[in-house]
Amino acid sequence: MFLKNCWYMGGWDHEVMDGKLLERRILDQPVVFYRGESGQIVALDNRCCHRGAKLSQGRIEGDCVRCMYHGLKFDPSGKCVQIPGQERIPPQLGVKSYPLVEKQHCMWIWMGDPALADPDEILDIPYLDDPEWKGIPAYLHYDANYLLIVDNLSDFNHLAFVHTNTLGGSEEYAYVTKPVSIDRLPNGFHVERWHKNSDPPPYLRKVIENKNDKVDRRNIARMLIPGIFLMDTMFAPAGMGAEGEGKPGTLEFRNCQFMTPETERTTHFFWNYLNDFEGADYTISMSLLDSLIEGFMEDKEIIEEQQKMLDADPSFKLVAVASDVALSHFRYIMDKLIQAEQAGEAPPKFAQQLSPAIAAE
Amino acid sequence: MFLKNCWYMGGWDHEVMDGKLLERRILDQPVVFYRGESGQIVALDNRCCHRGAKLSQGRIEGDCVRCMYHGLKFDPSGKCVQIPGQERIPPQLGVKSYPLVEKQHCMWIWMGDPALADPDEILDIPYLDDPEWKGIPAYLHYDANYLLIVDNLSDFNHLAFVHTNTLGGSEEYAYVTKPVSIDRLPNGFHVERWHKNSDPPPYLRKVIENKNDKVDRRNIARMLIPGIFLMDTMFAPAGMGAEGEGKPGTLEFRNCQFMTPETERTTHFFWNYLNDFEGADYTISMSLLDSLIEGFMEDKEIIEEQQKMLDADPSFKLVAVASDVALSHFRYIMDKLIQAEQAGEAPPKFAQQLSPAIAAE
Amino acid sequence: MFLKNCWYMGGWDHEVMDGKLLERRILDQPVVFYRGESGQIVALDNRCCHRGAKLSQGRIEGDCVRCMYHGLKFDPSGKCVQIPGQERIPPQLGVKSYPLVEKQHCMWIWMGDPALADPDEILDIPYLDDPEWKGIPAYLHYDANYLLIVDNLSDFNHLAFVHTNTLGGSEEYAYVTKPVSIDRLPNGFHVERWHKNSDPPPYLRKVIENKNDKVDRRNIARMLIPGIFLMDTMFAPAGMGAEGEGKPGTLEFRNCQFMTPETERTTHFFWNYLNDFEGADYTISMSLLDSLIEGFMEDKEIIEEQQKMLDADPSFKLVAVASDVALSHFRYIMDKLIQAEQAGEAPPKFAQQLSPAIAAE
Repeated sequence: MFLKNCWYMGGWDHEVMDGKLLERRILDQPVVFYRGESGQIVALDNRCCHRGAKLSQGRIEGDCVRCMYHGLKFDPSGKCVQIPGQERIPPQLGVKSYPLVEKQHCMWIWMGDPALADPDEILDIPYLDDPEWKGIPAYLHYDANYLLIVDNLSDFNHLAFVHTNTLGGSEEYAYVTKPVSIDRLPNGFHVERWHKNSDPPPYLRKVIENKNDKVDRRNIARMLIPGIFLMDTMFAPAGMGAEGEGKPGTLEFRNCQFMTPETERTTHFFWNYLNDFEGADYTISMSLLDSLIEGFMEDKEIIEEQQKMLDADPSFKLVAVASDVALSHFRYIMDKLIQAEQAGEAPPKFAQQLSPAIAAE
Repeated sequence: MFLKNCWYMGGWDHEVMDGKLLERRILDQPVVFYRGESGQIVALDNRCCHRGAKLSQGRIEGDCVRCMYHGLKFDPSGKCVQIPGQERIPPQLGVKSYPLVEKQHCMWIWMGDPALADPDEILDIPYLDDPEWKGIPAYLHYDANYLLIVDNLSDFNHLAFVHTNTLGGSEEYAYVTKPVSIDRLPNGFHVERWHKNSDPPPYLRKVIENKNDKVDRRNIARMLIPGIFLMDTMFAPAGMGAEGEGKPGTLEFRNCQFMTPETERTTHFFWNYLNDFEGADYTISMSLLDSLIEGFMEDKEIIEEQQKMLDADPSFKLVAVASDVALSHFRYIMDKLIQAEQAGEAPPKFAQQLSPAIAAE
Repeated sequence: MFLKNCWYMGGWDHEVMDGKLLERRILDQPVVFYRGESGQIVALDNRCCHRGAKLSQGRIEGDCVRCMYHGLKFDPSGKCVQIPGQERIPPQLGVKSYPLVEKQHCMWIWMGDPALADPDEILDIPYLDDPEWKGIPAYLHYDANYLLIVDNLSDFNHLAFVHTNTLGGSEEYAYVTKPVSIDRLPNGFHVERWHKNSDPPPYLRKVIENKNDKVDRRNIARMLIPGIFLMDTMFAPAGMGAEGEGKPGTLEFRNCQFMTPETERTTHFFWNYLNDFEGADYTISMSLLDSLIEGFMEDKEIIEEQQKMLDADPSFKLVAVASDVALSHFRYIMDKLIQAEQAGEAPPKFAQQLSPAIAAE
């Protein structure tokens, strides 16, 4: 059961470069994405209405796509506009078209009722197309339900144990630090955590010069429905903290991760980890990409096995501990939103409600 | 649900050469085929009646087969004729035996009630063992229901889009030609289609000398239950047509394709594509074999994905277009025949009814 | 449906050497085995009670194991003894612990009610740690239900056909020999079979000098619940028999095979094939190991295909023959024991009842 009336990150814009027909299952629906000649990105049901052949095995013609089984042609609204060898085209003939908005290199897709799709509800992530911020958009496929990945990101204690030698740095993190605050939001949560006077974590040491100087590490994260994780990370010289902007010597990162359900048991995991200090030295982005992949593979190994364990025995009961506050809240609001949607309620408008909270940072 | 009381192409005779015990699932039943010492080809249930071990892992002894688990031996009728270490053999002990007729290099098998098996109903395909016709019998395995392959062959428009650069030749075929006639038969359909004054399709160009001369292409095809496709193709110099026999410069092909269900979701696909002009130049048969494989792989890519699409969402509704006349008729008669069989009716005799229609060519 | 209140061979002790956390599914339950610092071997549910992550991806600390997802730590009884970042630990928090006894290099595990686990019921197999007996403990994974392997071992006729050129020696074995006796035991069966004045089987010829002298072969086997096969094999010079101890020129083997269900469709197959004559020549053990693997692969090929056949058609009925006496008895007592267990009865005590019978040898 998925939340349908909301925007999902469907892919990076570069995935439809050069006339590519991108096939991707979203919320267990087959979708084909392509950029038409006019520049518009189109998302259609990937099944030709005639015999169910894949449109992604077809051909882009202008802004249309032609099925290369028997040659039916569809326009960006999904309407069938040509049937070879047949004059009359029944007016209703066509495939489903999904609302799609290209914004800041993301292809946002709406899988629910098109009449409810409101582009103003799409998250604004300005650093994704700000030249001051450098990063490399990336993708991993997960054999696990998207909420298991959301869970993972909702409790930073895992940094200490899963990522001791990569993204975390030491097990101490789990013992000596705690979230400064966890704010429950109507569409997610906001959490902040300090780790003062600590060694730079391994992934940071690879891209800085003073590898042995202690740092104050600050993480400010938001997890938002339907599975969007945004984290600002600041490393300041120890003792200086990094509350404000422009503290000398502070290195900043912006981390976005998008968990989009492929099926109930598999997930599209998109991310970009951006920095504001590499300047022209693109090897810093490359190093960070490698470090993040290394770290995510550590998560993936655990989470995919966890999924198998849960699949194998649906009667197995999980037990919450204190640090599950954030993940419990997120699962609670997802459940509530899905229930409301099933009951026929229109999706709440979160963009307005959230602006103050997000602006506050 | 399969039609059981009819003859299926179970395999080529060369598949049981040299003492091979050929294991093959047909209509989701495990079958073992072998040629006994007397020359007779035998088809038995591939499960030893004792512990279900595979007879295809056994050993041919004369016209019998011995299970190599505990040594039980079965004669061609399936009767158990020896149990090592045991004197008395219960008279009913044995495995199911299937009626099997070897004809024109095909092993025809009857999966239904043996009492109803009438060898006169087996199709006569004389060119399969006529030395004037040259071809190479071949096989492909399909991860798709056999009717999806029947569908494919029932609408030649797909030649234009799937096989533009191989078997088809141009997309024009879908726009400028139409079937001359589609005859609904009680056991299939008969269709004829011309493509006049066209470039020779790529697979033909490889085996002819005047590669750039226009041709008149004539296809005469029959699709017969339970999934047998026979097509006569003639290429005459443009303007000459190829209605009759012996037109000078006309090249003729005979194409047989047999779709035999392995399971509901997989199919044995046998074919031979024969020509009457290669003489001693066997490279023409080799070239045609390669071309056909190339073309069939194009179909396979589409059809197997189509099968996955249909599996993933059984509620997905297909919409017929005008060129589906033939495939709709075929699916209709298959449904009717299966219903009649389920209701206990004896299978109709088609051989007699068909002779005039087929003779007409 | 498995018998739970009995001891299963869970693995060889060498499998938890060097701090290995051994993950193994037993009776479809996920188990982690490890040896703590004190030397004790521990078997726990392999799922952290918090989020279901695998403890086998964790870390041994003393006699405890730490989950390396969020750091929860469990003692050998399964009790949670630490939660990083949380002071209070709910007293009931923990994972299931399984009774485990290390004996003669085997890790015996009890999957049922721990209160009923009686170590005196664990089989005594003294040659497994007797320096006079040499062998190499080994493992194979089977894609088949454990009872199909029990069946296989319950009818020596299969030696003649499956292992003609490896462990058996000739097909004659199935025709000229019969079990001397089959004793039905309350927890299995006992069978004895002679093959007098025969050629040494191929696997024996490889490790003896007088390869062409005829031998009297005697097999004494017990199959015990829940799937334990113990066979004593003696080869004496032809004409001498090998009833007693110390007959000059007699070579003896001890064969243990343990079939432990992984799932309903897969099995852990452990074995050791020991001899009392190699002295310092370890190549004899190596040769026997190779021969046994060669032979077991012959079984595996048949049994795994048999499993697929039975899976494919649950309506397929097997027919018993005379030599099925032993296997039918074993399946009958397994059914009865499982029924009794399901009805809440305590497991019978077999150790006492059996001692005389086993001692009799």
